[in-house]
Amino acid sequence: MSDLITLHPEAQAQLFTDARTANTFTDEPVRDEQLRAIFELAKYPPTAANTQPLRVLFVRQGQAREQLLTHMSEGNRAKTASAPVVAVLAVDTDFHEFIPRVFPIRPEMRDGLAADAVARERMARFNATLQIGYWLFAVRAAGLAAGPMAGFDADGLDKEFFADSSWRSLLVVNIGKPGPDAWFPRLPRLDYDDVVRHA
Amino acid sequence: MSDLITLHPEAQAQLFTDARTANTFTDEPVRDEQLRAIFELAKYPPTAANTQPLRVLFVRQGQAREQLLTHMSEGNRAKTASAPVVAVLAVDTDFHEFIPRVFPIRPEMRDGLAADAVARERMARFNATLQIGYWLFAVRAAGLAAGPMAGFDADGLDKEFFADSSWRSLLVVNIGKPGPDAWFPRLPRLDYDDVVRHA
Repeated sequence: MSDLITLHPEAQAQLFTDARTANTFTDEPVRDEQLRAIFELAKYPPTAANTQPLRVLFVRQGQAREQLLTHMSEGNRAKTASAPVVAVLAVDTDFHEFIPRVFPIRPEMRDGLAADAVARERMARFNATLQIGYWLFAVRAAGLAAGPMAGFDADGLDKEFFADSSWRSLLVVNIGKPGPDAWFPRLPRLDYDDVVRHA
Repeated sequence: MSDLITLHPEAQAQLFTDARTANTFTDEPVRDEQLRAIFELAKYPPTAANTQPLRVLFVRQGQAREQLLTHMSEGNRAKTASAPVVAVLAVDTDFHEFIPRVFPIRPEMRDGLAADAVARERMARFNATLQIGYWLFAVRAAGLAAGPMAGFDADGLDKEFFADSSWRSLLVVNIGKPGPDAWFPRLPRLDYDDVVRHA
């Protein structure tokens, strides 16, 4: 594959082939500067009309973490308790308010989306989810392991943390250095012929 | 940032900071082996219960491309005509049929999802969209530029290409080497304080 993939081989391993979803974490702290560096990298890849609807709530150890745990499904609770930092990845349902600033070539898109809640919701969720993909790569680029979890009570979490805001949770991600027995054996991937067609 | 981001600096540039959405393409062909290498890299990052619902239809020049163009919004037509390869990224709404193979530790999830169309649709779209994020990085890892476009008639495209299948289009992506004047000036990104909170 090496002549076809031009990305540096170490980077291929760090981001794609060796990286794994961690289920345990060491006590090694994750610094605020690392979280900021992740943001500074993840902000670049594209979104529709540059809307960037993804938002991030970082939850460290303490009372907020305890509250977060009550909304996690049981199988996710122990690892979410142990991670140095947990990110709640959310979508800003009022992302369109930023359009005059982030897409100054068509500021009137703000008003069009303000008037169409269905289109706005679809656009928000699609683009925020794309950005989650970028964001998980940025975590790995910082030399950290990510542990994404869909198993949580989104309504309960949103009431707890986002009651007075337009943010709505999409995914919870544990972040840290992988601990002992951090991963399960890798599960099988689909084959090229399952996934790809040519026309 | 270099001590905080451990990813090789060339890889940071190739995937995040220098990479841009291309709007023009050269005539340099994209080989089938490159498309396969992109798949082989993009298949690794995680999806919920390893479900991998993303599907890809590659459309080369010819009659299928002409058909595809009729479903693109007008502003996207010229660049979609010129790209050596266009990928229609789609979700397989019957992705749950693969669960016994890709998630053998809980094969009964197939039947649970078969009985719950709403949960199935939500899970399919969320995870396929995550995978689109991974997939755009894999295109860049192959030294190619991607040009993602949301502006197309999804219903028309699906009737044309996926009438007898469970695939539904999510995004259309032009792929190739960037041509002359391939990009617009970069649009402004949101600031850390717009996007991130701490709890």
